Amino acid sequence: MVRPDMNPSPDRPLIRLLPGRDKRVKAGHPWAFSNEIAMTAAAKALPPGSVVRLEGDDGVRHGAWHFNPHSLIAARRLDADPDASCDAGWFRARIGAALALRERLFDAPHYRLVHAEADGLPGLVIDRYGDVLALQANTAGMEAATPAILEALTALVAPRGVVARNDANVRLLEGLAEEVRLLAGDAAGATVEENGRRFPVDLLGGQKTGWFFDQREHRARVARLAKGATVLDAFCHTGGFGIGCAVAGATAVTLLDRSEHALATAKQAAAANGVADRVSTLRGDAMEVLEKLGAEGRRFGIVVSDPPAFAKARKDQPAALRAYGKLARMSAALVAPGGFLFIASCSHHVASGEFADAVIWGVQRARREARILHMGGAGPDHPLHPMLPESAYLKGMLLHLG
Amino acid sequence: MVRPDMNPSPDRPLIRLLPGRDKRVKAGHPWAFSNEIAMTAAAKALPPGSVVRLEGDDGVRHGAWHFNPHSLIAARRLDADPDASCDAGWFRARIGAALALRERLFDAPHYRLVHAEADGLPGLVIDRYGDVLALQANTAGMEAATPAILEALTALVAPRGVVARNDANVRLLEGLAEEVRLLAGDAAGATVEENGRRFPVDLLGGQKTGWFFDQREHRARVARLAKGATVLDAFCHTGGFGIGCAVAGATAVTLLDRSEHALATAKQAAAANGVADRVSTLRGDAMEVLEKLGAEGRRFGIVVSDPPAFAKARKDQPAALRAYGKLARMSAALVAPGGFLFIASCSHHVASGEFADAVIWGVQRARREARILHMGGAGPDHPLHPMLPESAYLKGMLLHLG
Repeated sequence: MVRPDMNPSPDRPLIRLLPGRDKRVKAGHPWAFSNEIAMTAAAKALPPGSVVRLEGDDGVRHGAWHFNPHSLIAARRLDADPDASCDAGWFRARIGAALALRERLFDAPHYRLVHAEADGLPGLVIDRYGDVLALQANTAGMEAATPAILEALTALVAPRGVVARNDANVRLLEGLAEEVRLLAGDAAGATVEENGRRFPVDLLGGQKTGWFFDQREHRARVARLAKGATVLDAFCHTGGFGIGCAVAGATAVTLLDRSEHALATAKQAAAANGVADRVSTLRGDAMEVLEKLGAEGRRFGIVVSDPPAFAKARKDQPAALRAYGKLARMSAALVAPGGFLFIASCSHHVASGEFADAVIWGVQRARREARILHMGGAGPDHPLHPMLPESAYLKGMLLHLG
Repeated sequence: MVRPDMNPSPDRPLIRLLPGRDKRVKAGHPWAFSNEIAMTAAAKALPPGSVVRLEGDDGVRHGAWHFNPHSLIAARRLDADPDASCDAGWFRARIGAALALRERLFDAPHYRLVHAEADGLPGLVIDRYGDVLALQANTAGMEAATPAILEALTALVAPRGVVARNDANVRLLEGLAEEVRLLAGDAAGATVEENGRRFPVDLLGGQKTGWFFDQREHRARVARLAKGATVLDAFCHTGGFGIGCAVAGATAVTLLDRSEHALATAKQAAAANGVADRVSTLRGDAMEVLEKLGAEGRRFGIVVSDPPAFAKARKDQPAALRAYGKLARMSAALVAPGGFLFIASCSHHVASGEFADAVIWGVQRARREARILHMGGAGPDHPLHPMLPESAYLKGMLLHLG
């Protein structure tokens, strides 16, 4: 918050909050909603993604913001200084701070480098796979700033290649098309290193940003239990959980996914980590296959169920909770006595407590005694903005079943 | 839940739930409250800690329970079988299962071996320091069963010594006296090993059970950030956080506590880990000293604030939240730009979200930009019973401050 005695940036558009609608912004929230903003004809005419100055109706200056008159989240804070340049140099400083934190947290350059609002870069996500970067610009502002962001990244980490993974459906809310394309250099043969394992990453083909960094700590936690165990990794994607378990000494790992592409990548990863002889794949709809394995009386020492989001929107939440309960029931039934179940939800629209209740319901329906060993979220390269606790989308639970 | 067609144990007292008050027990909750039980004259006359059969008013058998007519939590489930022996052999099986889980989770025999209800042993807590055990019997039932528990422990792990750390104030609710005494063998020179560090543990003198195993993962998480940093460990007890940081490469560690005994033990631990030259101690009331250090403009790369419970009872909750906010404000003010704050609450009566809100309030009052890197609870040797989610008492937050 900057007081009105400073000189304004003369050519930067001014947007005003409505009278009495400045409480959240004054409290430090990084968003202003469209119904909090005076949507004048001039404001509506601004190109989506413009950098604006935001002021209260009382003249208090709230800094420089990205503005999109067509989005429900109409403004996102960039800087407390209304005259901040928001150019390549500015991005270099912000991304540089995010980089310094990751270098403190991790030994190898494989992590989520930028996690949007929590890193002071609203709507921008950058994943780093060594010398290859995957960028998601989820707002019109970050889409417009992409050239400046690329310039900053070149100065900071000189990437071999940068891929735009702009296929998140949140882009539709900003009027942006979904697209996946090479922005710079070459992304062929990208790999991710995690917990001492290597996985190929298909940035121009696979799902989301190619690798789900958010589960890093959960993968390590499950792998520590794996020695001598049989493992079922359902919704395995490219096999992060299961192959981690195989490397840690699991005797037999079954990878289950509906995507042939994901399973083919997983097989490459198993070979790259020297565990191809202990890893098998099963292609099919995971829910159907879990039910079938249960009917056959199959049991595993460890079952991992890490599905894609069941609730894509708020209205899906009741159905999603039923589905998580069903998944927990079917998964628990496949765990051998004394074994472990790891189950996760990445649904933004399902809260941590609701998910836990659904899982407990399912485990009880499977008539299994359970201890909850761990409940946790995404790793520290996915920091939370203190005013956006609802952005803690990932929920993982580890249970020991009697 | 056992159906009424089995033969009852003839000499085991029968306690009945009141009509319509069996819902929670039927749902699998391990407790029955005094207002759910038909408190007949015979029931009231039973010695606290008796093993009873519990049945619904409808005759449904709910198994064998510990019963205390004078406690609000009047009955605690031991076994689904109303005729389960509940003798030394029974304890050996239950404690053996808990032991098998810990041996899967940890490389060294230093952990919470039994964590009450979640391990099927309501009211019983056992911490293991290699060949020395510390036992807390927090119910009249477990107090009465202590000889059987000792017999089971001898058979399972042949301890050199067992100490009763019966100084938890929850014992008062069960009509039990607080006491700390040697139950068997010899507990001199006990040590705990954690994350590769060794700490002396004074089981007949120090606080609680001598060592707070619940913070094991948080201590490891903070230590991973410590290389090259200065560290303030407030409410340090015997120095687990700070000395872990020193071993991990912190340049200077300040341990702060009001207890001379705790600081003396911490100094021994620093010497035992070869870091005495980088560890200094400061004796005083932590809140007062934090304020004073802030006024002096002192800054540290990492500040740890892990106080004893501010809310000892439900009624203390509003004052406790104010105190956590104040603690967060004073602690954040001492963190150097780009540094880290770890802050924790072990108050049962403060929920996770409330604690997080208080910490965020405090950090904002200190005018610090913050990212939340981690929010978590106790380690996996403190499992949760699925019907007692409120027993997740420990809350830790790691923040990165700009």
